[in-house]
Amino acid sequence: MIEVALFGAGRIGRIHAANLVRQEGVRLRYVADIARRAAEEVAGQHGVRAIEQPQEALDDPSVNAVVIASSTDTHADLIQRAAAAGKAIFCEKPVDLDLERAQRCAEAVKAAGVVCMIGFQRRFDPTFAALKRRLTAGEIGEPEMLIVTSRDPGPPPLAYLRSSGGIFKDMLIHDFDIFRWILEDEAESVHAVGSCLVDTAIAGAGDADSTAVTLRTRVGKLCQINTTRRAAYGYDQRFEVLGSRGMLQAGNLRPTEVSAYTAAASQDLPEHFFLERYRAAYAAEMRHFFNALTEGTPVRTTIDDGVKALSLADAATRSWREGRTVQPLYV
Amino acid sequence: MIEVALFGAGRIGRIHAANLVRQEGVRLRYVADIARRAAEEVAGQHGVRAIEQPQEALDDPSVNAVVIASSTDTHADLIQRAAAAGKAIFCEKPVDLDLERAQRCAEAVKAAGVVCMIGFQRRFDPTFAALKRRLTAGEIGEPEMLIVTSRDPGPPPLAYLRSSGGIFKDMLIHDFDIFRWILEDEAESVHAVGSCLVDTAIAGAGDADSTAVTLRTRVGKLCQINTTRRAAYGYDQRFEVLGSRGMLQAGNLRPTEVSAYTAAASQDLPEHFFLERYRAAYAAEMRHFFNALTEGTPVRTTIDDGVKALSLADAATRSWREGRTVQPLYV
Amino acid sequence: MIEVALFGAGRIGRIHAANLVRQEGVRLRYVADIARRAAEEVAGQHGVRAIEQPQEALDDPSVNAVVIASSTDTHADLIQRAAAAGKAIFCEKPVDLDLERAQRCAEAVKAAGVVCMIGFQRRFDPTFAALKRRLTAGEIGEPEMLIVTSRDPGPPPLAYLRSSGGIFKDMLIHDFDIFRWILEDEAESVHAVGSCLVDTAIAGAGDADSTAVTLRTRVGKLCQINTTRRAAYGYDQRFEVLGSRGMLQAGNLRPTEVSAYTAAASQDLPEHFFLERYRAAYAAEMRHFFNALTEGTPVRTTIDDGVKALSLADAATRSWREGRTVQPLYV
Amino acid sequence: MIEVALFGAGRIGRIHAANLVRQEGVRLRYVADIARRAAEEVAGQHGVRAIEQPQEALDDPSVNAVVIASSTDTHADLIQRAAAAGKAIFCEKPVDLDLERAQRCAEAVKAAGVVCMIGFQRRFDPTFAALKRRLTAGEIGEPEMLIVTSRDPGPPPLAYLRSSGGIFKDMLIHDFDIFRWILEDEAESVHAVGSCLVDTAIAGAGDADSTAVTLRTRVGKLCQINTTRRAAYGYDQRFEVLGSRGMLQAGNLRPTEVSAYTAAASQDLPEHFFLERYRAAYAAEMRHFFNALTEGTPVRTTIDDGVKALSLADAATRSWREGRTVQPLYV
Repeated sequence: MIEVALFGAGRIGRIHAANLVRQEGVRLRYVADIARRAAEEVAGQHGVRAIEQPQEALDDPSVNAVVIASSTDTHADLIQRAAAAGKAIFCEKPVDLDLERAQRCAEAVKAAGVVCMIGFQRRFDPTFAALKRRLTAGEIGEPEMLIVTSRDPGPPPLAYLRSSGGIFKDMLIHDFDIFRWILEDEAESVHAVGSCLVDTAIAGAGDADSTAVTLRTRVGKLCQINTTRRAAYGYDQRFEVLGSRGMLQAGNLRPTEVSAYTAAASQDLPEHFFLERYRAAYAAEMRHFFNALTEGTPVRTTIDDGVKALSLADAATRSWREGRTVQPLYV
Repeated sequence: MIEVALFGAGRIGRIHAANLVRQEGVRLRYVADIARRAAEEVAGQHGVRAIEQPQEALDDPSVNAVVIASSTDTHADLIQRAAAAGKAIFCEKPVDLDLERAQRCAEAVKAAGVVCMIGFQRRFDPTFAALKRRLTAGEIGEPEMLIVTSRDPGPPPLAYLRSSGGIFKDMLIHDFDIFRWILEDEAESVHAVGSCLVDTAIAGAGDADSTAVTLRTRVGKLCQINTTRRAAYGYDQRFEVLGSRGMLQAGNLRPTEVSAYTAAASQDLPEHFFLERYRAAYAAEMRHFFNALTEGTPVRTTIDDGVKALSLADAATRSWREGRTVQPLYV
Repeated sequence: MIEVALFGAGRIGRIHAANLVRQEGVRLRYVADIARRAAEEVAGQHGVRAIEQPQEALDDPSVNAVVIASSTDTHADLIQRAAAAGKAIFCEKPVDLDLERAQRCAEAVKAAGVVCMIGFQRRFDPTFAALKRRLTAGEIGEPEMLIVTSRDPGPPPLAYLRSSGGIFKDMLIHDFDIFRWILEDEAESVHAVGSCLVDTAIAGAGDADSTAVTLRTRVGKLCQINTTRRAAYGYDQRFEVLGSRGMLQAGNLRPTEVSAYTAAASQDLPEHFFLERYRAAYAAEMRHFFNALTEGTPVRTTIDDGVKALSLADAATRSWREGRTVQPLYV
Repeated sequence: MIEVALFGAGRIGRIHAANLVRQEGVRLRYVADIARRAAEEVAGQHGVRAIEQPQEALDDPSVNAVVIASSTDTHADLIQRAAAAGKAIFCEKPVDLDLERAQRCAEAVKAAGVVCMIGFQRRFDPTFAALKRRLTAGEIGEPEMLIVTSRDPGPPPLAYLRSSGGIFKDMLIHDFDIFRWILEDEAESVHAVGSCLVDTAIAGAGDADSTAVTLRTRVGKLCQINTTRRAAYGYDQRFEVLGSRGMLQAGNLRPTEVSAYTAAASQDLPEHFFLERYRAAYAAEMRHFFNALTEGTPVRTTIDDGVKALSLADAATRSWREGRTVQPLYV
């Protein structure tokens, strides 16, 4: 039996709690949140202990694994403490907003020899994962070009944006992980432009809300990512890979398969946002994490993946600010 | 708390078990199956009692509801006994293969005053249910014509076919329910043709494997249903409604949204069969049943619906055998 | 050089004129129409002679071929006179509204030994023709079931309807030809139901505006055709063939490939009506006719095809009127 | 009557010839090509004079307009001579490979006061034009981001590539025109990366075969263009515009609307290459040109548009070579 402590009882923490308690051989033991009421609510649903501070769970030798879903600024510290306590770690992205600190975290994890998986749930999305399998099976030959469309339905509150690390680290970090996963080559150069077209207050906060990023890998593969904080029609999450022998596209999911023919021929818009779009992916990443622990197999999204995606986000931020093409660090 | 006995621990019984234990305020108490090992396996998964005969559960006054997922020839008897015992009833389709017996069952249920829901899960499919809501909201005006495509990926074993009541009662009964649900008018005439094109052994068993049914309602709405026991490309479950102001189509579901462009532009085939296609529908019908019990609201698919769909299947069988248009009974 | 007389300068006559003058080795010589102004207008566009009565053209020995696009009640007479004059004949469907008369026409054509092609242009539609080629190539194995959707955007004027021969001969005759072409087997039985749902004046004229037809072939293949005089969303012309190894669908054409994502995900509606939908087919059938004349190859849609499609329309009319399944004549 | 001389009897010249002779009020008079046989062949088809040198046609005062479809290195000279002779000019893209020379051409045209239209046929594609109309009508609010996918089915011969001016001037010049047309704002910065992934001989010729370009406009709109010389699945010509209230996509055209369901659900691949894809566009641009001449209305794609698209291609070439973001000239 794997005994688990969950750190963070917010929206994403609740999803992880619901998914992990369905795993055979896995038992939730603690739910920690500095917001005591949130911790108690989630703990109550699953009949486990609510705590405010994670230390009690880290000190409990029966706890084998921790799931870190607390705010970004706590990730690095919790990873390091959990690693020191010898716990297996699942941590939401990003490892940290600071690239050097993330890199030190990765080193601490390796030194401790613990399993550490970063929550890049998109790799576990059934559509994206099927595309990856078919790519690996050689269906379109060698991949040459990747086009990623990644658009949120609307911007988060300004308060969130201000502590988010900026659009490249907050939002595109997922797309940078997709880039590394699909093209299987590291970026040699990163170029980013950005604009504030959605809400001028976002520019006021020193951020962009619309971006266009280009990466070129060491062997010359190309990737373009386009992103906005506001797609009026829903959460738009597509990518396509051009290979030497064809193309694979991953399309949006729709709530239903109803088509209407009235003033136009219409279908459902894409799923509203990430909780709906990636519902299956969140469940699958939890299964993957605990299966890896049970069977001693490697996790698919390591802390190194977390550091490298952050490194691309860091490079894109610099490119955007400085108006020039830059090289990423730590890749 | 609603205490439940499940009768039948086969494939569909297991699905109902897994879905009902997720309902808040619902507790599975008994799993009955004449195949003792099957009963024990399912009961063991949920930590409840396995029994061979349902009577023990029917005699237990703490049991409020029964879910009947045993073989078709037991449905009528179990419905009548459960009604006599005052239990709420969820029963898989069909009520019985014999129309008169089904009608007597319906009368027994009404006399007992118990809730009885028939498992026409398609009405709970998110796509079909969304279409129905939009139709009711008037999006395409008055419905005039319904085209139903209902094709299985492959025929069941001959032994099953021989006791199935024939393709119209076994397979099209779902489509006849869709007809009544969507057009909201009863059939005035039923015409059916059938052929044996898939496997001559099916003709040997006195059945057809390919059918084309036409229904005309009292106010003149038209419906065509096409069915086969073998669609090489998967489980094909579509329907479309033509209305005075447009058309609504319910399309197939696909496992993923990957598109490939190589020798052709291709997408996934439809979901393989009913367990995959109607996974969400099975979960939703259980929620609906127990919500209705909890809240005292009517169930959406009553035993009368079961009798009337059976009546259309009976009429189609007669039409096919006699080569003429017939009127359905009990509608 | 093939010298041609066109009989009928209405809408469809003009289309044929424009298409035939593009053929190399083909010269339009006469345009005949009892409406002299129409004849003169079309003749003027192409710099040829306008005549009121076709006899002058039939008497001109330099005329090799006639294109009959005049009103239905003139077809049989013109076919017989053209055959007697030894001209090659292209005639719009139907041969005649009376089955016996059509059959006598076919005999006259055979006795005269002239080429006679009936304008079932749908066989020349690029989408339908591609489907047929793939079917013939065995892509889906043996065809078993055909579903035809054939819906007009709106009803014609009542005056037209009254002399149209009824919906089965006027509108479904094309679908009956598709049935024979795709399934390559003759109908053993025909069943038709019909309703008047669009305009009660159509019932007043003794006709239906919504129909559902089922055909069963000699070897047991099944076909369902659904038709309405009013599809609010445009001209809906689809069919699908189920075979032992898969399915082929022929979908609607759209004016453009623009998709919009606003309140819904939408695409263009189908092409508005037959002139738009079958523009390429009309051009292709003219090419086919004159190529057949030039090269001495058989035409794809003979007068026998015209008689047999009419026979199915006649059978459907009887089935609808008499409320029973009937056998077609002359097949 | 507008009398026309065609310069260039190659593939595209023949298409223009076939389209222009269909215009009412337009008469082809001369076909000039230094390849005398080609000139004679095309001239023979249309019953007009073949010449080797254009001067004879330029000297003929009855000639009102010239269509320049000869090789790129002749464009500027012919434009200048035709302008000097007071002829209306239709010229294939590009004006010239040299930006300064193109700019001088534009000045000469303006000085002469003649009409000069550049053959950016994509603006006349029915799908692209419909998207533009809907964008202009405000359907998706203010455009913010444009993603262009522009992929050829295979690379041209190396000999052609060597004199093509490079992929940005030869192939992307169309995409740069789409950028200006759709976003209606000029580029402030251009960034391009390129790779040689298709054929190393292309790198040997100093060119790239795969490119990713990003443009940012003066008001901050963003555009990404992805291009390859080899899409194994056909000619891929799509673009999508994100606006403040939604998205419009222009998709590929397919030869037929057949869908097959066998080992996969498949549809036709895109049209093979530009002659098929833009057939309707080539016809429409000729109509537009001669209508503009007849009615004295402005042409939609002026020589200034030609210069500005070339300027972006020039900037992209520099950006790619120098590895940095650059500003375009003459915009």
